[in-house]
Amino acid sequence: MFVTFEGLDGAGKTTQVELLRERLEHEGREVVATREPGGTELGERIRELLLGGVPVAPWAEATLFAASRAQHVAEVIRPALERGAVVLCDRFVDSSLVYQGAARGLGVQAVLELNLRATGSLLPDRTFLLHVPVATAAARLGERLDRIEAGGVALLEQVDAAYHSLAAAHPERIVELDGTLPARELAERIHGALRTLA
Amino acid sequence: MFVTFEGLDGAGKTTQVELLRERLEHEGREVVATREPGGTELGERIRELLLGGVPVAPWAEATLFAASRAQHVAEVIRPALERGAVVLCDRFVDSSLVYQGAARGLGVQAVLELNLRATGSLLPDRTFLLHVPVATAAARLGERLDRIEAGGVALLEQVDAAYHSLAAAHPERIVELDGTLPARELAERIHGALRTLA
Repeated sequence: MFVTFEGLDGAGKTTQVELLRERLEHEGREVVATREPGGTELGERIRELLLGGVPVAPWAEATLFAASRAQHVAEVIRPALERGAVVLCDRFVDSSLVYQGAARGLGVQAVLELNLRATGSLLPDRTFLLHVPVATAAARLGERLDRIEAGGVALLEQVDAAYHSLAAAHPERIVELDGTLPARELAERIHGALRTLA
Repeated sequence: MFVTFEGLDGAGKTTQVELLRERLEHEGREVVATREPGGTELGERIRELLLGGVPVAPWAEATLFAASRAQHVAEVIRPALERGAVVLCDRFVDSSLVYQGAARGLGVQAVLELNLRATGSLLPDRTFLLHVPVATAAARLGERLDRIEAGGVALLEQVDAAYHSLAAAHPERIVELDGTLPARELAERIHGALRTLA
């Protein structure tokens, strides 16, 4: 079972991955918790490359994220799924769809096709989208919204709207939840929503 | 006008790029001669990454080549084409189709779609495939065929066959030429074949 968590930084993804991992392990499941970007040595090297100040065109950036994801799938996610483990991943393809596809304007469908090619068409069985208002996400990260540059806030609003559209378009896969709920209550809902899967 | 050269290492691509560049410049055209892999700072960094011993899965490798190509197109090739220059490129997408798509077994169509996404669907106006027997290519590189490991020769034979199939499938774009002809005669044929283009 492949489960991913999406939402703005500060939405509570890391906490929910940890709570779900504890619960599933308590039930006797093998759990592999991982995250993007990164998750492999190649992924870390690609991340350094993206942060290293070399000029990177928008499609080259999206393709580098896809390459990192291809390695993550081949080296970590697929082997774990094949031996029956539950894989919990903090950010996956939907992050590329909303950040590069929507906010950067490359196109959600085009970025999806790029990623399906790179990953052998792997999509999560279930994706939990944790929704919090942009101001809440910023506050949780210790930032005051009125001190983030206007372009930064506009970008986060775009990402938020794009996540919402994705969830509306894929109700069979993406479950949107109120990330402002207490963490334990949210964890309960997530665990409940997984009961219908294997 | 975007012209690419394909064929095995040792087929004579570098020589023909140089001869065509001289001739077109003599005719007063601006010519940008470039090559893959590489061609940009990001491309060089990706090349180092691929040679650096980090584990790289087959699809991650193909996607990294596509990322390098996306940057090459955005930074070098498209700007040159937009100002009316002739771009001559030593290896381009067809190299990925035959090496990753055919020889590595990822599938020619799948690797093509990955690359079309990454490059904004840029294909050459004309591609010259220089065909030489595998033994000739090896000899030109100073290697004796019987000293190359069997897998190496089999790979080159596969690449050679895949190039031929590509040329047969895309006669409107790919011109296959006998790379064993004298360089000046080959240059004459290449120049003649371009006369029908702008």
